Parts: sequence; C-alpha cells; structure tokens
Amino acid sequence: MTGTLTIAGLGPGSEAMVTPEVSQALAEATDVIGYIPYVARVAERPGLTLHPSDNRVELDRALLALDLAAKGAQVVVVSSGDPGVFAMASAVFEALEANPEYTDTDIRVLPGITAMLAAAAAAGAPLGHDFCAINLSDNLKPWEMIENRLRMAARGDFAMAFYNPRSKSRPEGFEKTLSILREECEGTRLITFARAVSTPDQAIHTVTLSEATPDMADMRTVVIVGNSATRRVGRYVYTPRSAS
Amino acid sequence: MTGTLTIAGLGPGSEAMVTPEVSQALAEATDVIGYIPYVARVAERPGLTLHPSDNRVELDRALLALDLAAKGAQVVVVSSGDPGVFAMASAVFEALEANPEYTDTDIRVLPGITAMLAAAAAAGAPLGHDFCAINLSDNLKPWEMIENRLRMAARGDFAMAFYNPRSKSRPEGFEKTLSILREECEGTRLITFARAVSTPDQAIHTVTLSEATPDMADMRTVVIVGNSATRRVGRYVYTPRSAS
Repeated sequence: MTGTLTIAGLGPGSEAMVTPEVSQALAEATDVIGYIPYVARVAERPGLTLHPSDNRVELDRALLALDLAAKGAQVVVVSSGDPGVFAMASAVFEALEANPEYTDTDIRVLPGITAMLAAAAAAGAPLGHDFCAINLSDNLKPWEMIENRLRMAARGDFAMAFYNPRSKSRPEGFEKTLSILREECEGTRLITFARAVSTPDQAIHTVTLSEATPDMADMRTVVIVGNSATRRVGRYVYTPRSAS
Repeated sequence: MTGTLTIAGLGPGSEAMVTPEVSQALAEATDVIGYIPYVARVAERPGLTLHPSDNRVELDRALLALDLAAKGAQVVVVSSGDPGVFAMASAVFEALEANPEYTDTDIRVLPGITAMLAAAAAAGAPLGHDFCAINLSDNLKPWEMIENRLRMAARGDFAMAFYNPRSKSRPEGFEKTLSILREECEGTRLITFARAVSTPDQAIHTVTLSEATPDMADMRTVVIVGNSATRRVGRYVYTPRSAS
C-alpha cells in the first residue's frame, strides 16, 4: 500500500470543533505523530501506533513522518488549532526541502479551527475587520523583526492576534510588546486575553491597553488587540466592518 | 422557550470541513438566515424555516435574526468560512449596538474554517509565519486605508491573505493592489490564487509577483502573498518558521 502523510489540525481543544475530514483521517491512520498533549487527544485502537514527542523537536517529528510514509504507512501529524498557523505544516515542508529523497511523498494538509478564531468567536467578533496574526516567540526569529511587525501592524490600524505571548523562558517578551503598543496606540484600545479556548478551563477577559499587565497572558493564552474602532456591546467585543 | 441566536461558520464549501458543533446548531434551528448560496447549503426539514437574502443586506439580515430570537426562535445565521472574518458576526453586533432593546439576546458565535486557511492548506503552508488578512473591498472603507495597510504589511514582511480581491463593480482595485505590491516587494515574491477552495471547482495557481495579472482573481478567489522567505518545495508553497 502506498504511504501517505496527512498534516491535520485538531482545533483548539473541543472535540465539537474537529472537522469530519480530520476525524476520518485519524480513523484511517496507522501512525499518529505529534507533541505529547495533542497525540493524547487521539484514541488508541488496534492497528494504530501513537508517536508522542516533546516540544521543540518539530524537525525530528517531521522526518519520522516522512520516513514512515515512505515505508507505506498512513501517517497523520497532528497539530493543535490549524497546522498551517505556527504549527507543524511548515516544519514538514522544511524537512521535505532538506531531504529531497522524500519529494514524491503524498502530502495533504487538513485545516483546523485556529486558536485566534475560536478566541474571537468566544469574545464576539474582534477580528471582524483587517487583522494580523503574530507569533511573539523569538525562538526562531530575532526580536527586532517582532518589534517591527508590531509597529507596522499598529500603524496600519490592524487588529492583531498574538500566539505564544509568554513563556517561562521569555517572561519579558510580552512586557516589551505592551510597551510598544503603548507607544503606538491609545490607552483605551481594547485587549482580550483568551485562555484555554473551547476547553473546560476557558477564560475570556477584556481590558484596555492601559489596564493590561504582562501576567494576564501565559502560553495557553491567545491575545487579541482590537483596532482603533473596536468596541464593546453588552458582554461582547467587536470590530465593525466599516472604518470607524 | 427562550430564543437564541447562533452565528455559525459553514467553512469554505466542503461538508467535510463543517464542524460538529455547527452541524448540531443547524439540526436544532427553527430559522436559518443568510446569503442565498449559504442558506442553500442547509437541508430543508419540517420545523425549519429558511430565510435566504441577497448580498449587501447584512444589517437587515442581522435585525431579522435578533427579532426572531426575541420572539423565541432558535435562530442560526450562516456565513461561509468563519463568521468572524469579513462575515456576519460583526454585522450582528453592529445591529445589536444600534438596537439596545435586543441587548439580552443569547448570542453565540461558532467558528468555521475560513477561506484563507483552507487555501493555505491546499497550497502547502504559505501562512506558516506571521501574516495579515485584508479585505480588498472598498464598499465599507476608503481605498486609502487599504493602500496604507498593504504598505505596512509589506514593510513588516508579513505574508498576506486577500479576501474579495475583485468584483465586477470594482475591476480596478486588484490592479492597484498589484501595483502597490510591485513598489514594495521584489518581483520574485510568490502569489497563490486559490479559487473555489474545497469545492469541485477548486483551482490553485502560484506565480511570481512579476507574472501576476489582475484577471487571475475573481470574487471566488482568495489570494495569498508570501513573505520574502516563502518558497516552493515540490508542488507545494510554504513559508518557513524561521526568518529567512
């Protein structure tokens, strides 16, 4: 049997947000590969081998996936959210580029509900106008690039969604982000902290930029910064479709 | 029975991308409201009233939804893709703000697979690094705002996804967009035109900025512009996770 490699998005946490095509791919898999907590969401069954691995070994994981597919396995690499948004899809293509012997692999990417869109839905519609998605981790890019993107996004009056705002190894990054936003935006700008979206631990909390503090975010939080027109209505936060 | 208003995303077209929670909401609805082609995706059944309406009447549609929910109906407003991305969620909150008598409405937003992420998955992973989503329609915002956002996005070296790139009433907008991109980016920059993603008509086509022409996009197309590091590997287009 010809091997295949499917890179699938499990959505942010709730099983009710997993698309039927992703469930189908998992039902047909012989091997599931991914970060430990994501693989833990896949039910064990006869004929399926689970390959959980630690964080920060994305390229090893991608190579294992390419190798198993080359040997005839039906491989599914799982990501949280959408695999194409700060997740495993780019890592697999990086590994493919570096290892041309796998060029003929049959690769499919199956999209998922990415965290910022589940967070926006839980808050109302803060991303209802033009917006940017920015990964605040500086593991793979220089901080200067992040700073420039924050300033350009603010000067374009984009709403913004931040992934990986804060970790134990980078406690200062989100504090610097808030400082830059305070230079570029008015203090009444609305910021939504969405933690553990779509799970039983979900917590959604909206404050102004003046009120925001670095400890409001952790690695399970997606942060959404409104544009200059973002406002509250009742318990919701939304960005109107028009400019003001 | 207390009325409810659910704003649900149907994804880009394939039923295999409709989340279980959206299917569940449709199964429990008494009234489904939306743009004609999206309502046509919902199966008729006894006890369900379909309310299809034309394009550009988003606020009328939102008011009908609020009114039916206030009268006790289980209302689902359907959008293509994700309702929070250039779709009905913001329109409902605008209507809620303008009509405070509906403030107590029980509103839920259910996310969906938005077109740019389905398009990115079909192409590979061109949005695998920081990116912007920009609606190129100038129905609700001045062209100068769009131009500024394009320039800021380019100067931040964001990848970009364009919704509504071109319509019969705005044939020149996408031509102007390509001109701005040519001023800001190198000619080898990769651009993916993704038409009718996830439907039987799907067509994915990647060219360089130098090769791109306005007629490559229509209203069923999502356009994805890579960042300066976006590249091809085999038949895929992807943006690496690192900066270069």
